[in-house]
Formats: sequence, structure tokens, C-alpha cells
Amino acid sequence: MARRTASREAAGHASAGDEARHGHRHAWRTAVTHVEPNRILVRGYALDELMGRVSFAEAVYLLLEGELPTPAIGRLMDAMLVSLVDHGTSPPSTLAARNVATAGAPLRASVAAGVLGFGTYHGGDIEGCVQLLERGVARVREGVSHEEAARQVVEAHAARHEAVPGFGHRLHTHDPRAARLFQMALELDVDGAHLRMLRAIERALNALRPDGPPIPVNVDGAIAAVCADIGLAASVGHALFIISRVPGLIAQAREEQERERPMRQIDSTAAIYDGPRERRLPGTRK
Amino acid sequence: MARRTASREAAGHASAGDEARHGHRHAWRTAVTHVEPNRILVRGYALDELMGRVSFAEAVYLLLEGELPTPAIGRLMDAMLVSLVDHGTSPPSTLAARNVATAGAPLRASVAAGVLGFGTYHGGDIEGCVQLLERGVARVREGVSHEEAARQVVEAHAARHEAVPGFGHRLHTHDPRAARLFQMALELDVDGAHLRMLRAIERALNALRPDGPPIPVNVDGAIAAVCADIGLAASVGHALFIISRVPGLIAQAREEQERERPMRQIDSTAAIYDGPRERRLPGTRK
Amino acid sequence: MARRTASREAAGHASAGDEARHGHRHAWRTAVTHVEPNRILVRGYALDELMGRVSFAEAVYLLLEGELPTPAIGRLMDAMLVSLVDHGTSPPSTLAARNVATAGAPLRASVAAGVLGFGTYHGGDIEGCVQLLERGVARVREGVSHEEAARQVVEAHAARHEAVPGFGHRLHTHDPRAARLFQMALELDVDGAHLRMLRAIERALNALRPDGPPIPVNVDGAIAAVCADIGLAASVGHALFIISRVPGLIAQAREEQERERPMRQIDSTAAIYDGPRERRLPGTRK
Amino acid sequence: MARRTASREAAGHASAGDEARHGHRHAWRTAVTHVEPNRILVRGYALDELMGRVSFAEAVYLLLEGELPTPAIGRLMDAMLVSLVDHGTSPPSTLAARNVATAGAPLRASVAAGVLGFGTYHGGDIEGCVQLLERGVARVREGVSHEEAARQVVEAHAARHEAVPGFGHRLHTHDPRAARLFQMALELDVDGAHLRMLRAIERALNALRPDGPPIPVNVDGAIAAVCADIGLAASVGHALFIISRVPGLIAQAREEQERERPMRQIDSTAAIYDGPRERRLPGTRK
Repeated sequence: MARRTASREAAGHASAGDEARHGHRHAWRTAVTHVEPNRILVRGYALDELMGRVSFAEAVYLLLEGELPTPAIGRLMDAMLVSLVDHGTSPPSTLAARNVATAGAPLRASVAAGVLGFGTYHGGDIEGCVQLLERGVARVREGVSHEEAARQVVEAHAARHEAVPGFGHRLHTHDPRAARLFQMALELDVDGAHLRMLRAIERALNALRPDGPPIPVNVDGAIAAVCADIGLAASVGHALFIISRVPGLIAQAREEQERERPMRQIDSTAAIYDGPRERRLPGTRK
Repeated sequence: MARRTASREAAGHASAGDEARHGHRHAWRTAVTHVEPNRILVRGYALDELMGRVSFAEAVYLLLEGELPTPAIGRLMDAMLVSLVDHGTSPPSTLAARNVATAGAPLRASVAAGVLGFGTYHGGDIEGCVQLLERGVARVREGVSHEEAARQVVEAHAARHEAVPGFGHRLHTHDPRAARLFQMALELDVDGAHLRMLRAIERALNALRPDGPPIPVNVDGAIAAVCADIGLAASVGHALFIISRVPGLIAQAREEQERERPMRQIDSTAAIYDGPRERRLPGTRK
Repeated sequence: MARRTASREAAGHASAGDEARHGHRHAWRTAVTHVEPNRILVRGYALDELMGRVSFAEAVYLLLEGELPTPAIGRLMDAMLVSLVDHGTSPPSTLAARNVATAGAPLRASVAAGVLGFGTYHGGDIEGCVQLLERGVARVREGVSHEEAARQVVEAHAARHEAVPGFGHRLHTHDPRAARLFQMALELDVDGAHLRMLRAIERALNALRPDGPPIPVNVDGAIAAVCADIGLAASVGHALFIISRVPGLIAQAREEQERERPMRQIDSTAAIYDGPRERRLPGTRK
Repeated sequence: MARRTASREAAGHASAGDEARHGHRHAWRTAVTHVEPNRILVRGYALDELMGRVSFAEAVYLLLEGELPTPAIGRLMDAMLVSLVDHGTSPPSTLAARNVATAGAPLRASVAAGVLGFGTYHGGDIEGCVQLLERGVARVREGVSHEEAARQVVEAHAARHEAVPGFGHRLHTHDPRAARLFQMALELDVDGAHLRMLRAIERALNALRPDGPPIPVNVDGAIAAVCADIGLAASVGHALFIISRVPGLIAQAREEQERERPMRQIDSTAAIYDGPRERRLPGTRK
């Protein structure tokens, strides 16, 4: 998270006067949440005032960035968090959670185990993609065209035999979550240099192998571009993945404990979906 | 989570026809999320259709309960999730997260450690309070008055020298988060038998010790009553606590790594708040 | 762990004189390990003096019980820790660890996830069995015969439709680890009332169903009886399971990362052993 | 772990004949532990045969390396595991464990949280030091003197303003655990090129700043050198740290739950040792 550059005093920060009362032993400072009897301030806002007036997604932004988001960014926060909320029974993190659940552990243990399965190969592409987009955007600012900057990125990765983070998916050839985020960014007038760079890279990647299967931008790439365009640090994208996926882990772990016997052998390739058939949102929500 | 009683076929659930394709070896069923190339259905709804049309809090409800919430319940979901999002540097779970962070671990490790600190004494009161409210409401349905049912609950706990879950707080004598939830439940016309029982218990508790300090209902109790009145199982309340607190753990762990040196000795009693002074939401959000 | 009954002063414990130096703020006491520049005492013994003179298993006993074990108990500690060190690829805890490993996480994350899979159904029988044996032994001390006390235990569990902890195994009809522990307890002259009760329960269990498959005592039951006979609290048995299994989790997670590609779908029923064929210890070790 | 170069067939490994029985679906191979009814083989050795004949530390080596250690290496394994077993109340990993314990969580949750606090700055130096020693030894094999190779290592780190892993300690100026490991390595005739390089680096480090406080080799450095000299991979050193510290975490978490009230604020700087005063091993153990 970028540090606020505005003067801490001018922004109305608590003074160092409290230090005298605490003494100097191990005294340290925290700017996230202030708690005292009958009063809880999150980045300065009273928690009970936030309740019912900001969404949880907006409160997440406030916690991580220190300020409330604009309405448009707030809507994107909700959308990004919804986009990552679950991805079925097959991710290793979900299987880690289910295996802990079949052993009879409480939900929180399943959540902890599942969260430990995020990272390098799984939910870790967001940060890598943000960095890559920022390099591309820096090139463009130096005068290079989007197409040329994108081509350089793609060729550099090809030379290192590395996949480009934010692109491709073991299952999807057209990630519906990415497409929806692009549409929303456009509608909310938030799309900027990073989204533009992302699309240029998509074109360059597919131009490199015109006869091969299409390599689509995936949800990690879309989130990376949106986060960068709204000014969030690379690490915030990974934080969003964690926050979003926790309800999915909980739903999977609960189902494991409610429907299956304890200590079973879980073969994720043998899962058959028996939930609701596809259904549309009611008209009131369009 | 109560199982949907409606016929699975009538509700449009996927048939067992898929079983033939998978064979019978270790086949098992899952109703949460269906994933296939270019299509992700969460409880039957396409994920990209949900994005931008339901809030993350509403998506959490959908995941856990299997159906979309009403708009009123959706607003309460956002409010409940906001209410628990952080509580400063002193909870043991937050300190577990910070200690893992000061050791240089990635954010997900801090989250996992923090989540393991939820439970018996911490975030665990929600389930206990729901069960207690349900017993009280059952008494009332048998013909006992609210005041009498409440008195019985309070006296049973006093006889066992047990605190009543959902009441009291080591710091707050008037939990602002509970008050706000009550106000919203009233405004949204969602308050029902459990909220009424909760208030009766609060009166009975304080009548027992009229000269002592007030024992307020706390946020766990308020969430327990609201969850019960909107039909959520007791375990869902605890799940909401986990989901809500994860962003708080992340913000605390990130601050630890951004502002402090690694491997420091963290004394939570020596933390001094230097964040924004109290500030009000802009008029546009009222 | 039972508190040492001998006078703390007489046993040579550090005096409260240090309190003055620390002040009274949050001062608390710890009796496990004392650390100061160039000196580390574990329960009073200099760590460098222990190294090379006590085995790690004996150091575990010292840490948990506060005193060094006798040589016989030390040998049993090593044997008990060896007995639980691994059990192949199928336990849910091992699969949780492997799933976190396939996601690219560091070994410690795999260990944490695996450890969270111990508990109620898995490694949790040791405590339950200790309690049951202690009840049986108490009966015998009251004058009831071993056979009668055992019969009562078995019938009580049958009436509640509960399995007797410490008996049976999904795979083994004759748990070789249990047999070996019994043999060692006999040779080391450590077998006592609890082991005798365990064997009486085994006879009673199998007498109840003479035509059914044999229900063997399993390693958890053997460890429970040995721990109880050497005076360890019930919770120590579960601690031994955790300590012992950690190397197994590490070996499994490392193999996952060294031999398999990342993010694979792990089907434990499809594992084929390709390690060394059965081999005997060299003659020098008999 | 280096893969065994000997022919798998010649070494008596299970054939691929089993594959036919399992089919080809997701079939994969594992060489650690074979489990079938009434038979458990760890790297080919029957578990019940190992019990009472190899120490737990030797079983750890067998699990990780695939072969039994020599008696000398077995003794060093026990010593290395003892050396890291605990380090008091102040390490952040221990505080993470204690904070989860004060929240009322089961021991395994405390262990998981504590283990997550190992890593970059804490127990992570072993691998970094092994790599550094291997580079130094490679230089010596190319003809450079020990002193020159050591000087190069020290100067390279100084130029990057980096500490040399394996040296220095926030508390100890003479790490007794390192000294004891050196002594044992010498007595057991195991000391080799890496230990020699380690000592050369210690001399070079201190020559660089003759007037400053001495920078001692610490236990991580000693373990790194010993592991490298006995042929263990760098990652095994870190695994030893995890395995060793788990009993320490358990002892600390248990003490927290047995002696302190739940949900307390833990200030590690206010801990006062009240355990046994320093005592010597009985003569029978020298």
C-alpha cells in the first residue's frame, strides 16, 4: 500500500502525545483501527457509522488503502471479490480444506489449510502480472507503442520459456470473469493504461502462435490490470484473492462435513455436480 | 446449513446421468460450484452475471445458503460483515498474525495463523448465543413469557457460574456495533423472536445485578440474533466472523511488515494509534 | 502435565527476585526454557550438555514432563515416536500436506496444513483410550476383576453404538506397531495396570462377536496404555502423535515437490509404491 | 534429497507391475512408505522392526534420505535435533503459538501457527549458509586457499550490506550449541570441508572488524556445516529445524494453557523464568 503522502498532521492524525502516557518501552504505532471503550474507528471512521452505509467490499478497500473508494471503485471491489469467490472442488487449496474437514476439524482449520495452498502457482499470478503491466506502461511512457511494448514482454517470456502471468488457463479458453471485469471497467470509466497494455499483450501472445489454441487473458490478469488502473499496489491483488476465496473454502468444507462420512478418500476427479441447474438472476437485479 | 427440502429434480438439479460418464469409483456429489470450460456456476448462477449485480456479501450468503438473499437480508449481510472486520492490535488472533508477519512470512501465512486463533473464547460466542436464543424462543412458543424465559436462561448460567454468550465485553459497556445492527434490523423489518429474546435476556441479566456495571449485549449476540431471525444456522454466524476478520488480519499483517523491522518483540499494550482522527462519512453516503 | 508437587524452592527454582527487575506490568512466569547470553537451559539442563548425551526422544520427554526419563522410558519414547512417523499417502492429513505442496508452498506450510488434519478421528483416539483405561483401572482398584471391568467398558460403548478408542483399524487386523510396543514394555518391565486393562478389553471386545472379524488393539491403544503406565497425561499421547508425524509429512511433501508437476490432481487411491522392497536391518542393529 | 543413482531395479524397488492393477488413471509413484494390511514399510524397513532398534532421529534420517545413517551420523542427528528443540518465550513463532493457545485452540493449532513463523529470518539461515559453504568449498577445490575463499564470501556480503547467514546472534556472543556440534563432529570424525570453511569464514568475519564485538558462528551455521559434511541437501537442514522445534512449541503452548488465563495479553519481555535452576546430568549419562 502506498503511504499517504499528505502530511500526517494535516490529515488529522493522532499526535505523539500519547507516547508520554505509555512510556517509551517497546512503544510502536499503528494506523489501522483505534479501539477504546464504546468506540471503534477503522481508518478514522466509526465502525457503526460504516455499517449499512458502505459495503463490505468498500470496507475492505478502506482497510487496505486507508481511504474510502469512489462509488465506481467500490463497485469494482465488489465485482472483483465476487469473481474469485469459488472455483469448484478441484483446486489444491480446496482439496487441502476438504481433507482437513473430513478429518473432523473445525471450519477455521479448513480455512487455514486452504489459505496455505494459495501462492506461487495459485492466486500468485496477480502480483506478477501487475509488475509486468507496470513495466509495459513505463515503456509506453518512454515513447514505445503499445504493440511494441507488448511484443517485447511476450518475447522476453518466450525466451525464458516462462508463461506470461495473467494469461492462459488450464480449463477456460475464454474466461468469463475477465470479460465481465473489462466490461465493467469500461462502463465505470476506470479502464486505463494497464488495461490497454493487458489487451495489447493478449494480442501479441496470440499473434506469436496464430495456429495454436487461443491463449486468453484470465481473471488474475484482469484483476491485475483493474487494480493497477485504480491505483492499488501489486500485493493488494493477492490480498483480494485470499479475502474472496475464504467463503468458497468454507462452503466446500461445510459441504464435506454435511454430506460425506469422516475420513474418506477424496478424489476430486470423481466429483459430480448435483446443485441447481443454470439459472438467471431475477429481473429486479439487472 | 439446512438442506433444501424441495425436490432436487423440481429445483432443477443436475441429474445422476453424469455418473455413467465418471464411473462408480469414489464418485461423490457436490452442489456448490460447477466449473466447466468457460462457464462457472455458483449455486446455479453464472459467476460473470453475479459480478456487478450482487455484492460480495450477497454472494457469501448465496454460497452458504444456496439461494440469493432478499435485498433486506443482503444489506444486513454487508452490515454484519463490516461490523467484525477488525478490532485493533490486541486480539490474540491478530497478534498471532503479526508475529508470523514479523518473521517475514507471506500474508497468507499470517492469515492462517490468525484464523487459528478464532474459536472457543474468540468469535465462538455466536454459535453459543444462537443456541441459547433458540431455547428461549422455544420456551416462549410453549407459552412462557419472554421475561420468564429470559430469567430462566440467566439463572441457569449463573448457577453454573458461566457467562451468557453474547453479553458483556472486556472493553465496551455499550457495543456500538450491536446497537447499529438492532437499528438496521428494525428499519429493515427483519427483527423477530430472537432479537426480542436477546433484549429480554439483556434486561434480565442487568436486573440480576442492578448495582453492578451494565452488562451490554455485544456484537456476537447481535449477530447471533439477526442470523437466527433471518434463518441462518448457528454455524453460519461463526463463518461470518472468519470471513469478516480476514481483511483485518491482512491489514494488520501488512502494516507490521511495512512499518516495523523484522523479528521484533510485539507488545500489544504498547501500541499507540497514529491513524486518522475520527472523521465522518461524506454526506453522499448517508 | 501434572505439576511438580515438590516445593519449588526446594527443587531449586528461580526465585521471584527477578520480578523487581522486570516491574509488575504483565509479568508472568515460565518454567520451560531459560535463555540468556550464551546459556540455554531446558528444564534446568544446559542444552549443549544434553546434546550427544540424551536422544531427541528423551529431550521431548524432558520438555513435556519436566524431568529426564529413566533409560527404559527413554527407549519407549524413541519407539513410540518411531511407530507413528508415517502411514503412507492416504491419511487426509498427508493429503492436505501434499495438496499444499503441489501448489508450490514451502515445506512449513505443508506441515501446518497436515497438522491441522490431526484430531477428532485421526490421532485423537489416544486421549480417549487413556481415559477409558483409567476408568477401567479405577474399577479394578475398587475390587472388580479385570474381565468384569473390561466387559463393562465394552458393553457401555456397544450400548451407545460407539467404537472403543484404541481398537480396530480400517486396514490392519493385527497392528504390528502395537504388538512391538507390548513386547518392549514387557522386556523393559514397564507394563502395568493399563496394559493389562487394554488386553482385557481386547479379549472382551472379541468375545462379544466371536464370529466376526478380529478387532485388534491398534497403535493408538498401545501408546495410550504405555503412556498411562509410565505416568504421562492423556494429552501427552496426542502430542507424541503430532511430533512423530511431522517428519512423515515433510517426507511426503518433499516427494510431492520433487517428483510431481505443480498443481496436479492428487488421487491417493492411484498411488503405486516404487520404493525399496522389504529389507531387514543389518545384523549390527539387532 | 539427491535421487538415488543406483538402478531402481537393482536396489530392489517395486516393479511397475502394479500399474496394471490400478489402471492408468492418475497413477503416480511414491517411494516413502508402503502400507498394506498388517505391514508398514518405511523406505523398505518394517516399522515394527525399526521400533526399539533405531532412534527417532535415525528414523527421521531414513525418511528424508532413504537409507539408514551410520552410527556416527545417527548420533549427530540426535544432537542436531536436540540443539534446536526450544529457545524460550521470545521467538515470534513461539509467540504465535502462545497467542493461539490463549484463545483456547487445541495444541495442533498452536503448532501450525508456530510452524508458520519459521522461515525467512527464523530458521531460514540454514539453507542460505549451506549454499554459501558449498560455494566456498567449490572455490577451494579450484585451488583457492580457505582463507582467500572465506575472505571473498565475507567481502561480497559486506558489499551488499548483507549479514552472512550462519553467523551472529541477537543474544549469544558464543553459541554453546554450535561449539558442542563442532566438538561432536570432531570426535565422530565427521568434520570435513564445510566445517573447515565455516571456521575460515568466522575468522574472516571477525578479522574484518577487529575492534567490534565478536561475531560468533551460530547454531544454524553449525548445523549447515555438519549437514553439508554428512551429505544432506540444504533443504534438509530447514526440515530438521521444523521437526526439532515442534516439541518446544507444544511445551510452550501447554504451559500457556495450564498456567495462564484465556485471552490474556502476552508480553514476552515480561516473562520471568521460574523453572529449575541449572542442574547437571547425572553421572550415568556422561
